[in-house]
Amino acid sequence: MSSAPLPDYLRHVRIVLSRTSHPANIGAAARAMKTMGLTDLYLVAPNLMATPMTPEAMQYTGQEDFRLPEESFILASGAADVLQRAKIVADLPSALADTVLSCALTSRRRELTSPLQTPRELTPELLALAQAGHKVALVFGNETFGLSIEEVQTCNRLMTISGNPDYFSLNLAQAVQVVCYELFSQVGYEMSHLVSEVNRATSEQVSGMVNHLEQTMEQLDFFRRRNQQRMMRRILSLFNRANPTTEDIDILRGFFNTVQKKAGGRD
Amino acid sequence: MSSAPLPDYLRHVRIVLSRTSHPANIGAAARAMKTMGLTDLYLVAPNLMATPMTPEAMQYTGQEDFRLPEESFILASGAADVLQRAKIVADLPSALADTVLSCALTSRRRELTSPLQTPRELTPELLALAQAGHKVALVFGNETFGLSIEEVQTCNRLMTISGNPDYFSLNLAQAVQVVCYELFSQVGYEMSHLVSEVNRATSEQVSGMVNHLEQTMEQLDFFRRRNQQRMMRRILSLFNRANPTTEDIDILRGFFNTVQKKAGGRD
Repeated sequence: MSSAPLPDYLRHVRIVLSRTSHPANIGAAARAMKTMGLTDLYLVAPNLMATPMTPEAMQYTGQEDFRLPEESFILASGAADVLQRAKIVADLPSALADTVLSCALTSRRRELTSPLQTPRELTPELLALAQAGHKVALVFGNETFGLSIEEVQTCNRLMTISGNPDYFSLNLAQAVQVVCYELFSQVGYEMSHLVSEVNRATSEQVSGMVNHLEQTMEQLDFFRRRNQQRMMRRILSLFNRANPTTEDIDILRGFFNTVQKKAGGRD
Repeated sequence: MSSAPLPDYLRHVRIVLSRTSHPANIGAAARAMKTMGLTDLYLVAPNLMATPMTPEAMQYTGQEDFRLPEESFILASGAADVLQRAKIVADLPSALADTVLSCALTSRRRELTSPLQTPRELTPELLALAQAGHKVALVFGNETFGLSIEEVQTCNRLMTISGNPDYFSLNLAQAVQVVCYELFSQVGYEMSHLVSEVNRATSEQVSGMVNHLEQTMEQLDFFRRRNQQRMMRRILSLFNRANPTTEDIDILRGFFNTVQKKAGGRD
Protein backbone atom coordinates (compact mmCIF):
# COMPACT_ATOMS: atom_id res chain seq x y z
CA MET A 1 0.00 0.00 0.00
CA SER A 2 1.65 3.24 -1.11
CA SER A 3 1.56 6.24 1.16
CA ALA A 4 -0.09 9.58 0.60
CA PRO A 5 2.33 12.33 -0.43
CA LEU A 6 3.45 14.70 2.28
CA PRO A 7 1.82 18.13 2.28
CA ASP A 8 3.68 20.41 -0.08
CA TYR A 9 3.56 23.37 2.28
CA LEU A 10 6.10 21.77 4.60
CA ARG A 11 8.77 23.13 2.31
CA HIS A 12 7.94 26.59 3.68
CA VAL A 13 9.01 25.54 7.15
CA ARG A 14 12.65 26.43 7.65
CA ILE A 15 15.06 25.16 10.26
CA VAL A 16 17.84 27.61 11.05
CA LEU A 17 20.93 26.50 12.96
CA SER A 18 22.99 29.44 14.13
CA ARG A 19 26.69 29.11 14.87
CA THR A 20 26.64 25.37 15.36
CA SER A 21 29.93 24.03 16.74
CA HIS A 22 29.82 20.35 15.89
CA PRO A 23 29.43 18.97 12.36
CA ALA A 24 27.72 15.88 13.79
CA ASN A 25 24.83 17.99 15.02
CA ILE A 26 24.24 19.44 11.58
CA GLY A 27 24.02 15.96 10.12
CA ALA A 28 21.74 14.79 12.90
CA ALA A 29 19.53 17.84 12.41
CA ALA A 30 19.21 17.05 8.70
CA ARG A 31 18.02 13.54 9.57
CA ALA A 32 15.59 14.82 12.17
CA MET A 33 14.17 17.25 9.61
CA LYS A 34 13.77 14.78 6.80
CA THR A 35 12.20 12.21 9.14
CA MET A 36 9.48 14.77 9.78
CA GLY A 37 9.10 15.92 6.19
CA LEU A 38 11.12 19.13 6.36
CA THR A 39 13.69 20.09 3.75
CA ASP A 40 14.60 23.77 4.16
CA LEU A 41 17.79 24.15 6.20
CA TYR A 42 19.77 27.34 6.76
CA LEU A 43 23.10 27.46 8.55
CA VAL A 44 24.26 30.75 10.02
CA ALA A 45 28.04 31.05 10.33
CA PRO A 46 28.61 27.46 11.46
CA ASN A 47 31.68 27.32 13.67
CA LEU A 48 32.34 23.70 13.01
CA MET A 49 35.24 23.09 15.29
CA ALA A 50 37.24 20.05 14.40
CA THR A 51 36.32 16.93 16.29
CA PRO A 52 38.65 14.02 17.01
CA MET A 53 37.16 12.19 14.08
CA THR A 54 37.82 14.78 11.39
CA PRO A 55 41.47 15.60 10.77
CA GLU A 56 40.76 18.90 9.09
CA ALA A 57 39.27 21.89 10.83
CA MET A 58 36.76 23.63 8.61
CA GLN A 59 36.29 27.22 9.56
CA TYR A 60 33.58 29.39 8.23
CA THR A 61 35.34 32.08 6.25
CA GLY A 62 32.35 33.91 4.89
CA GLN A 63 33.36 32.88 1.41
CA GLU A 64 30.99 31.35 -1.04
CA ASP A 65 32.92 28.15 -1.50
CA PHE A 66 32.40 27.08 2.07
CA ARG A 67 31.71 23.40 2.33
CA LEU A 68 30.39 21.38 5.22
CA PRO A 69 32.84 18.83 6.56
CA GLU A 70 32.50 15.22 5.57
CA GLU A 71 31.40 14.32 9.08
CA SER A 72 28.15 16.22 8.66
CA PHE A 73 27.34 14.25 5.55
CA ILE A 74 28.27 10.95 7.16
CA LEU A 75 25.94 11.55 10.07
CA ALA A 76 23.26 12.88 7.77
CA SER A 77 23.19 9.47 6.17
CA GLY A 78 20.07 9.21 3.98
CA ALA A 79 19.33 12.89 4.61
CA ALA A 80 22.46 14.12 2.85
CA ASP A 81 20.23 15.75 0.23
CA VAL A 82 18.95 18.13 2.87
CA LEU A 83 22.54 19.11 3.62
CA GLN A 84 23.41 19.55 -0.02
CA ARG A 85 20.57 21.99 -0.45
CA ALA A 86 21.28 23.82 2.79
CA LYS A 87 21.99 27.53 2.53
CA ILE A 88 24.91 28.96 4.45
CA VAL A 89 24.70 32.62 5.39
CA ALA A 90 26.71 35.05 7.46
CA ASP A 91 24.11 36.22 9.95
CA LEU A 92 20.64 35.50 11.24
CA PRO A 93 18.83 38.39 9.51
CA SER A 94 20.00 36.92 6.21
CA ALA A 95 18.48 33.56 7.13
CA LEU A 96 15.17 35.14 8.14
CA ALA A 97 14.90 37.85 5.49
CA ASP A 98 12.00 36.25 3.60
CA THR A 99 10.20 34.78 6.60
CA VAL A 100 7.08 36.20 8.22
CA LEU A 101 7.24 34.32 11.50
CA SER A 102 10.37 33.13 13.25
CA CYS A 103 10.64 31.39 16.60
CA ALA A 104 13.81 31.53 18.67
CA LEU A 105 14.42 28.37 20.70
CA THR A 106 15.50 29.26 24.18
CA SER A 107 15.93 27.11 27.25
CA ARG A 108 17.28 29.49 29.78
CA ARG A 109 15.72 32.22 31.76
CA ARG A 110 16.82 35.44 30.20
CA GLU A 111 16.18 39.11 30.37
CA LEU A 112 13.35 38.81 27.94
CA THR A 113 10.16 40.71 27.65
CA SER A 114 8.43 38.45 25.18
CA PRO A 115 6.37 35.57 26.52
CA LEU A 116 7.69 32.04 26.24
CA GLN A 117 5.54 29.67 24.25
CA THR A 118 5.77 25.96 23.68
CA PRO A 119 6.08 24.19 20.34
CA ARG A 120 2.55 22.90 20.91
CA GLU A 121 1.23 26.46 21.12
CA LEU A 122 3.20 27.98 18.25
CA THR A 123 2.83 25.20 15.70
CA PRO A 124 -0.73 25.98 14.55
CA GLU A 125 0.28 29.49 13.51
CA LEU A 126 3.48 28.24 11.88
CA LEU A 127 1.65 25.62 9.83
CA ALA A 128 -1.21 27.93 8.93
CA LEU A 129 1.23 30.48 7.51
CA ALA A 130 3.15 27.77 5.67
CA GLN A 131 -0.10 26.48 4.21
CA ALA A 132 -0.82 29.98 2.98
CA GLY A 133 2.53 30.04 1.19
CA HIS A 134 4.52 32.10 3.68
CA LYS A 135 7.94 31.15 4.95
CA VAL A 136 8.34 30.47 8.65
CA ALA A 137 11.39 29.53 10.69
CA LEU A 138 12.50 27.76 13.83
CA VAL A 139 15.85 29.10 15.04
CA PHE A 140 18.31 27.11 17.12
CA GLY A 141 21.52 28.50 18.62
CA ASN A 142 24.95 27.23 19.49
CA GLU A 143 25.15 24.00 21.52
CA THR A 144 26.78 25.68 24.49
CA PHE A 145 25.56 29.24 24.68
CA GLY A 146 22.37 29.16 22.60
CA LEU A 147 21.28 32.27 20.72
CA SER A 148 22.66 35.73 21.43
CA ILE A 149 20.27 38.38 22.68
CA GLU A 150 20.49 40.12 19.32
CA GLU A 151 19.57 36.90 17.55
CA VAL A 152 16.61 36.39 19.85
CA GLN A 153 15.39 39.90 19.18
CA THR A 154 15.54 39.26 15.44
CA CYS A 155 12.82 36.65 15.87
CA ASN A 156 9.11 37.19 16.38
CA ARG A 157 8.51 34.62 19.08
CA LEU A 158 10.26 32.80 21.89
CA MET A 159 9.82 29.07 21.89
CA THR A 160 10.81 26.80 24.72
CA ILE A 161 10.53 23.06 25.26
CA SER A 162 9.06 22.34 28.67
CA GLY A 163 10.67 19.77 30.89
CA ASN A 164 12.12 19.01 34.30
CA PRO A 165 13.45 22.29 35.66
CA ASP A 166 15.89 20.43 37.92
CA TYR A 167 17.39 18.41 35.10
CA PHE A 168 17.05 19.43 31.48
CA SER A 169 19.45 17.61 29.20
CA LEU A 170 18.27 18.14 25.64
CA ASN A 171 21.07 18.62 23.14
CA LEU A 172 20.76 20.51 19.88
CA ALA A 173 19.93 17.49 17.73
CA GLN A 174 17.28 16.33 20.18
CA ALA A 175 15.75 19.79 20.38
CA VAL A 176 15.51 19.89 16.59
CA GLN A 177 13.98 16.41 16.63
CA VAL A 178 11.37 17.31 19.20
CA VAL A 179 10.36 20.51 17.40
CA CYS A 180 10.16 18.74 14.04
CA TYR A 181 8.08 16.01 15.66
CA GLU A 182 5.67 18.60 17.07
CA LEU A 183 5.33 20.29 13.68
CA PHE A 184 4.60 17.04 11.88
CA SER A 185 2.22 15.85 14.59
CA GLN A 186 -0.08 18.75 13.80
CA VAL A 187 0.01 18.24 10.05
CA GLY A 188 -2.67 15.59 10.35
CA TYR A 189 -0.96 13.14 8.08
CA GLU A 190 -2.70 9.84 7.84
CA MET A 191 -0.42 6.90 8.38
CA SER A 192 -2.68 4.54 6.52
CA HIS A 193 0.24 2.64 5.10
CA LEU A 194 0.89 1.30 8.57
CA VAL A 195 -2.56 -0.17 9.05
CA SER A 196 -2.78 -3.76 7.99
CA GLU A 197 -5.85 -4.89 6.17
CA VAL A 198 -8.00 -6.67 8.68
CA ASN A 199 -11.61 -7.67 8.51
CA ARG A 200 -13.31 -5.98 11.37
CA ALA A 201 -16.36 -7.77 12.70
CA THR A 202 -19.63 -5.89 12.54
CA SER A 203 -21.72 -5.04 15.53
CA GLU A 204 -24.09 -7.86 14.67
CA GLN A 205 -21.26 -10.38 14.42
CA VAL A 206 -19.93 -9.34 17.82
CA SER A 207 -23.37 -9.57 19.41
CA GLY A 208 -23.89 -12.92 17.76
CA MET A 209 -20.69 -14.21 19.28
CA VAL A 210 -21.57 -12.88 22.72
CA ASN A 211 -25.02 -14.48 22.45
CA HIS A 212 -23.32 -17.71 21.60
CA LEU A 213 -21.19 -17.34 24.71
CA GLU A 214 -24.29 -16.66 26.76
CA GLN A 215 -25.97 -19.77 25.42
CA THR A 216 -22.89 -21.76 26.29
CA MET A 217 -22.87 -20.37 29.79
CA GLU A 218 -26.55 -21.19 30.19
CA GLN A 219 -25.93 -24.67 28.99
CA LEU A 220 -23.34 -25.05 31.74
CA ASP A 221 -25.73 -23.59 34.27
CA PHE A 222 -23.12 -20.90 34.91
CA PHE A 223 -25.65 -18.25 35.89
CA ARG A 224 -27.01 -20.01 38.94
CA ARG A 225 -27.11 -17.34 41.64
CA ARG A 226 -25.40 -14.83 39.36
CA ASN A 227 -26.77 -11.69 37.78
CA GLN A 228 -26.91 -12.83 34.18
CA GLN A 229 -28.00 -9.59 32.59
CA ARG A 230 -25.37 -7.55 34.27
CA MET A 231 -22.62 -9.99 33.46
CA MET A 232 -23.57 -10.23 29.81
CA ARG A 233 -23.63 -6.47 29.46
CA ARG A 234 -20.10 -6.33 30.74
CA ILE A 235 -19.01 -9.16 28.44
CA LEU A 236 -20.53 -7.43 25.44
CA SER A 237 -18.87 -4.18 26.43
CA LEU A 238 -15.54 -5.95 26.75
CA PHE A 239 -15.67 -7.50 23.33
CA ASN A 240 -16.88 -4.30 21.71
CA ARG A 241 -13.92 -2.43 23.20
CA ALA A 242 -11.61 -4.99 21.66
CA ASN A 243 -12.88 -4.36 18.13
CA PRO A 244 -12.71 -8.06 17.18
CA THR A 245 -11.90 -9.17 13.69
CA THR A 246 -13.99 -11.79 11.91
CA GLU A 247 -11.16 -14.23 12.60
CA ASP A 248 -11.43 -13.50 16.33
CA ILE A 249 -15.15 -14.21 16.14
CA ASP A 250 -14.53 -17.51 14.35
CA ILE A 251 -12.00 -18.60 16.94
CA LEU A 252 -14.25 -17.78 19.87
CA ARG A 253 -17.39 -19.30 18.39
CA GLY A 254 -15.46 -22.41 17.45
CA PHE A 255 -14.38 -22.65 21.07
CA PHE A 256 -17.94 -22.16 22.33
CA ASN A 257 -19.10 -24.91 19.99
CA THR A 258 -16.49 -27.25 21.39
CA VAL A 259 -17.48 -26.41 24.94
CA GLN A 260 -21.11 -27.01 24.13
CA LYS A 261 -20.32 -30.40 22.65
CA LYS A 262 -17.93 -31.62 25.30
CA ALA A 263 -19.49 -30.16 28.38
CA GLY A 264 -23.05 -29.80 27.30
CA GLY A 265 -24.22 -33.12 28.58
CA ARG A 266 -23.31 -32.46 32.19
CA ASP A 267 -25.27 -30.45 34.69
CA MET B 1 12.35 32.12 41.35
CA SER B 2 12.01 28.49 42.38
CA SER B 3 10.01 26.13 40.21
CA ALA B 4 6.86 24.28 41.08
CA PRO B 5 7.43 20.62 41.92
CA LEU B 6 6.74 18.12 39.18
CA PRO B 7 3.49 16.19 39.49
CA ASP B 8 4.00 13.19 41.71
CA TYR B 9 1.99 10.87 39.49
CA LEU B 10 4.72 10.87 36.84
CA ARG B 11 6.42 8.16 38.89
CA HIS B 12 3.64 5.79 37.72
CA VAL B 13 4.73 6.20 34.11
CA ARG B 14 7.17 3.44 33.25
CA ILE B 15 9.58 3.25 30.35
CA VAL B 16 10.40 -0.31 29.34
CA LEU B 17 13.36 -1.05 27.07
CA SER B 18 13.28 -4.59 25.79
CA ARG B 19 16.42 -6.36 24.64
CA THR B 20 18.42 -3.22 24.01
CA SER B 21 21.72 -3.90 22.25
CA HIS B 22 23.78 -0.80 22.97
CA PRO B 23 24.61 0.44 26.47
CA ALA B 24 24.78 4.00 25.14
CA ASN B 25 21.09 3.89 24.31
CA ILE B 26 20.16 2.91 27.83
CA GLY B 27 22.10 5.88 29.18
CA ALA B 28 20.57 8.21 26.63
CA ALA B 29 17.10 6.90 27.46
CA ALA B 30 17.68 7.60 31.16
CA ARG B 31 18.57 11.21 30.29
CA ALA B 32 15.56 11.59 28.03
CA MET B 33 13.32 10.27 30.80
CA LYS B 34 14.67 12.45 33.56
CA THR B 35 14.56 15.53 31.33
CA MET B 36 10.82 14.94 31.07
CA GLY B 37 10.27 14.10 34.73
CA LEU B 38 10.12 10.30 34.45
CA THR B 39 11.99 8.00 36.80
CA ASP B 40 10.64 4.45 36.41
CA LEU B 41 12.82 2.43 34.04
CA TYR B 42 12.62 -1.31 33.38
CA LEU B 43 15.09 -3.21 31.25
CA VAL B 44 14.04 -6.52 29.76
CA ALA B 45 16.95 -8.88 29.07
CA PRO B 46 19.29 -6.20 27.74
CA ASN B 47 21.65 -7.73 25.21
CA LEU B 48 24.29 -5.12 25.66
CA MET B 49 26.77 -6.17 23.07
CA ALA B 50 30.23 -4.81 23.64
CA THR B 51 31.00 -1.64 21.74
CA PRO B 52 34.49 -0.56 20.67
CA MET B 53 34.62 1.75 23.66
CA THR B 54 34.00 -0.85 26.35
CA PRO B 55 36.62 -3.55 26.67
CA GLU B 56 34.40 -5.96 28.55
CA ALA B 57 31.32 -7.56 27.07
CA MET B 58 28.51 -7.65 29.57
CA GLN B 59 26.02 -10.33 28.80
CA TYR B 60 22.71 -10.66 30.51
CA THR B 61 22.88 -13.93 32.34
CA GLY B 62 19.54 -13.85 34.07
CA GLN B 63 21.29 -13.67 37.39
CA GLU B 64 20.44 -11.15 40.03
CA ASP B 65 23.86 -9.56 40.19
CA PHE B 66 23.66 -8.28 36.65
CA ARG B 67 25.11 -4.82 36.34
CA LEU B 68 24.84 -2.33 33.56
CA PRO B 69 28.15 -1.54 31.89
CA GLU B 70 29.99 1.62 32.77
CA GLU B 71 29.20 3.10 29.37
CA SER B 72 25.52 3.33 30.19
CA PHE B 73 26.27 5.30 33.32
CA ILE B 74 28.70 7.56 31.50
CA LEU B 75 26.12 8.46 28.88
CA ALA B 76 23.44 8.77 31.50
CA SER B 77 25.48 11.58 33.01
CA GLY B 78 23.26 13.48 35.47
CA ALA B 79 20.56 10.86 35.07
CA ALA B 80 22.62 8.05 36.52
CA ASP B 81 20.18 7.85 39.43
CA VAL B 82 17.51 6.67 37.02
CA LEU B 83 19.82 3.89 35.91
CA GLN B 84 20.71 2.92 39.43
CA ARG B 85 17.06 2.47 40.29
CA ALA B 86 16.26 0.66 37.03
CA LYS B 87 14.81 -2.85 37.34
CA ILE B 88 16.20 -5.60 35.17
CA VAL B 89 13.88 -8.49 34.39
CA ALA B 90 13.94 -11.56 32.21
CA ASP B 91 10.88 -10.98 30.05
CA LEU B 92 8.29 -8.41 29.13
CA PRO B 93 5.37 -9.87 31.15
CA SER B 94 7.52 -9.39 34.25
CA ALA B 95 8.04 -5.73 33.38
CA LEU B 96 4.33 -5.17 32.80
CA ALA B 97 2.89 -7.34 35.55
CA ASP B 98 1.60 -4.47 37.70
CA THR B 99 0.62 -2.14 34.87
CA VAL B 100 -2.93 -1.54 33.65
CA LEU B 101 -2.10 0.05 30.31
CA SER B 102 0.94 -0.65 28.19
CA CYS B 103 1.76 0.75 24.75
CA ALA B 104 4.08 -1.06 22.36
CA LEU B 105 6.10 1.27 20.16
CA THR B 106 6.11 0.05 16.61
CA SER B 107 7.31 1.69 13.45
CA ARG B 108 6.85 -0.94 10.84
CA ARG B 109 3.83 -2.31 9.15
CA ARG B 110 3.11 -5.66 10.71
CA GLU B 111 0.52 -8.35 10.73
CA LEU B 112 -1.37 -6.58 13.44
CA THR B 113 -5.02 -6.37 14.17
CA SER B 114 -4.94 -3.59 16.72
CA PRO B 115 -5.20 -0.04 15.51
CA LEU B 116 -2.12 2.15 15.53
CA GLN B 117 -2.33 5.26 17.66
CA THR B 118 -0.02 8.19 18.06
CA PRO B 119 1.61 9.37 21.29
CA ARG B 120 -0.67 12.42 21.05
CA GLU B 121 -3.74 10.22 21.12
CA LEU B 122 -2.65 7.77 23.81
CA THR B 123 -1.11 10.19 26.28
CA PRO B 124 -4.35 11.49 27.86
CA GLU B 125 -5.37 8.00 28.90
CA LEU B 126 -1.85 7.19 30.11
CA LEU B 127 -1.66 10.31 32.26
CA ALA B 128 -5.20 9.98 33.56
CA LEU B 129 -4.47 6.46 34.78
CA ALA B 130 -1.17 7.56 36.30
CA GLN B 131 -2.95 10.40 38.07
CA ALA B 132 -5.38 7.86 39.50
CA GLY B 133 -2.46 5.88 40.91
CA HIS B 134 -2.24 3.14 38.29
CA LYS B 135 0.96 2.09 36.61
CA VAL B 136 1.25 2.53 32.88
CA ALA B 137 4.06 1.68 30.48
CA LEU B 138 5.65 2.62 27.18
CA VAL B 139 7.49 -0.32 25.65
CA PHE B 140 10.41 0.03 23.24
CA GLY B 141 12.09 -2.86 21.45
CA ASN B 142 15.55 -3.70 20.16
CA GLU B 143 17.26 -1.07 18.02
CA THR B 144 17.36 -3.25 14.95
CA PHE B 145 14.35 -5.53 15.02
CA GLY B 146 12.00 -3.74 17.44
CA LEU B 147 9.57 -5.79 19.52
CA SER B 148 8.70 -9.39 18.79
CA ILE B 149 5.12 -10.22 17.90
CA GLU B 150 4.70 -11.89 21.29
CA GLU B 151 5.93 -8.78 23.04
CA VAL B 152 3.52 -6.63 21.05
CA GLN B 153 0.64 -8.90 21.98
CA THR B 154 1.53 -8.56 25.66
CA CYS B 155 0.71 -4.86 25.43
CA ASN B 156 -2.71 -3.23 25.35
CA ARG B 157 -2.08 -0.67 22.64
CA LEU B 158 0.07 -0.05 19.60
CA MET B 159 1.79 3.30 19.50
CA THR B 160 3.57 4.73 16.50
CA ILE B 161 5.35 8.00 15.87
CA SER B 162 4.17 9.53 12.61
CA GLY B 163 6.67 10.85 10.13
CA ASN B 164 7.93 10.80 6.56
CA PRO B 165 7.03 7.36 5.17
CA ASP B 166 9.83 7.63 2.61
CA TYR B 167 12.50 8.38 5.17
CA PHE B 168 12.06 7.60 8.83
CA SER B 169 15.30 7.69 10.78
CA LEU B 170 14.43 7.80 14.48
CA ASN B 171 16.73 5.75 16.66
CA LEU B 172 15.78 4.23 20.00
CA ALA B 173 17.02 7.14 22.13
CA GLN B 174 15.23 9.66 19.93
CA ALA B 175 12.01 7.65 20.03
CA VAL B 176 12.19 7.57 23.83
CA GLN B 177 12.86 11.31 23.83
CA VAL B 178 9.92 12.10 21.59
CA VAL B 179 7.51 9.94 23.60
CA CYS B 180 8.70 11.40 26.90
CA TYR B 181 8.33 14.89 25.43
CA GLU B 182 4.76 14.13 24.39
CA LEU B 183 3.91 12.80 27.84
CA PHE B 184 5.29 15.85 29.59
CA SER B 185 3.72 18.25 27.12
CA GLN B 186 0.29 17.09 28.26
CA VAL B 187 1.06 17.35 31.96
CA GLY B 188 0.29 21.05 31.85
CA TYR B 189 3.31 22.03 33.85
CA GLU B 190 3.74 25.73 34.19
CA MET B 191 7.20 26.91 33.28
CA SER B 192 6.86 30.05 35.33
CA HIS B 193 10.50 29.96 36.33
CA LEU B 194 11.37 30.82 32.74
CA VAL B 195 9.27 33.96 32.63
CA SER B 196 11.20 37.00 33.60
CA GLU B 197 9.50 39.53 35.78
CA VAL B 198 8.41 42.28 33.48
CA ASN B 199 6.04 45.09 34.07
CA ARG B 200 3.37 44.77 31.47
CA ALA B 201 1.73 48.02 30.48
CA THR B 202 -2.00 48.26 31.08
CA SER B 203 -4.51 48.86 28.36
CA GLU B 204 -4.79 52.46 29.45
CA GLN B 205 -1.05 52.96 29.31
CA VAL B 206 -0.88 51.54 25.79
CA SER B 207 -3.77 53.69 24.63
CA GLY B 208 -2.14 56.70 26.24
CA MET B 209 1.05 56.05 24.33
CA VAL B 210 -0.80 55.62 21.04
CA ASN B 211 -2.71 58.82 21.69
CA HIS B 212 0.59 60.53 22.28
CA LEU B 213 1.79 59.19 18.95
CA GLU B 214 -1.36 60.44 17.29
CA GLN B 215 -0.86 63.88 18.76
CA THR B 216 2.69 63.88 17.51
CA MET B 217 1.54 62.89 14.04
CA GLU B 218 -1.08 65.63 14.09
CA GLN B 219 1.51 68.12 15.14
CA LEU B 220 3.55 67.15 12.10
CA ASP B 221 0.49 67.36 9.90
CA PHE B 222 1.07 63.74 9.01
CA PHE B 223 -2.59 62.98 8.39
CA ARG B 224 -3.07 65.37 5.52
CA ARG B 225 -4.95 63.38 2.90
CA ARG B 226 -4.70 60.25 4.98
CA ASN B 227 -7.40 58.31 6.78
CA GLN B 228 -6.48 59.14 10.34
CA GLN B 229 -9.00 56.99 12.09
CA ARG B 230 -8.16 53.89 10.14
CA MET B 231 -4.45 54.34 10.56
CA MET B 232 -4.69 54.90 14.30
CA ARG B 233 -6.82 51.80 14.72
CA ARG B 234 -4.12 49.77 13.05
CA ILE B 235 -1.40 51.40 15.13
CA LEU B 236 -3.31 50.67 18.33
CA SER B 237 -3.85 47.10 17.22
CA LEU B 238 -0.15 46.73 16.45
CA PHE B 239 0.98 47.90 19.84
CA ASN B 240 -1.63 45.86 21.66
CA ARG B 241 -0.39 42.72 19.88
CA ALA B 242 3.10 43.51 21.08
CA ASN B 243 2.09 43.54 24.75
CA PRO B 244 4.42 46.43 25.58
CA THR B 245 6.08 46.74 28.93
CA THR B 246 6.03 49.96 30.89
CA GLU B 247 9.62 50.47 29.83
CA ASP B 248 8.61 50.17 26.16
CA ILE B 249 5.94 52.83 26.78
CA ASP B 250 8.50 55.10 28.41
CA ILE B 251 10.91 54.74 25.53
CA LEU B 252 8.29 55.45 22.91
CA ARG B 253 6.72 58.37 24.71
CA GLY B 254 10.16 59.83 25.35
CA PHE B 255 10.77 59.61 21.63
CA PHE B 256 7.43 61.21 20.81
CA ASN B 257 8.24 64.03 23.23
CA THR B 258 11.54 64.61 21.48
CA VAL B 259 9.88 64.64 18.08
CA GLN B 260 7.30 67.08 19.30
CA LYS B 261 10.00 69.39 20.64
CA LYS B 262 12.39 69.18 17.73
CA ALA B 263 10.04 68.92 14.80
CA GLY B 264 6.89 70.44 16.23
CA GLY B 265 7.58 73.94 15.12
CA ARG B 266 7.67 73.10 11.44
CA ASP B 267 4.70 72.72 9.23
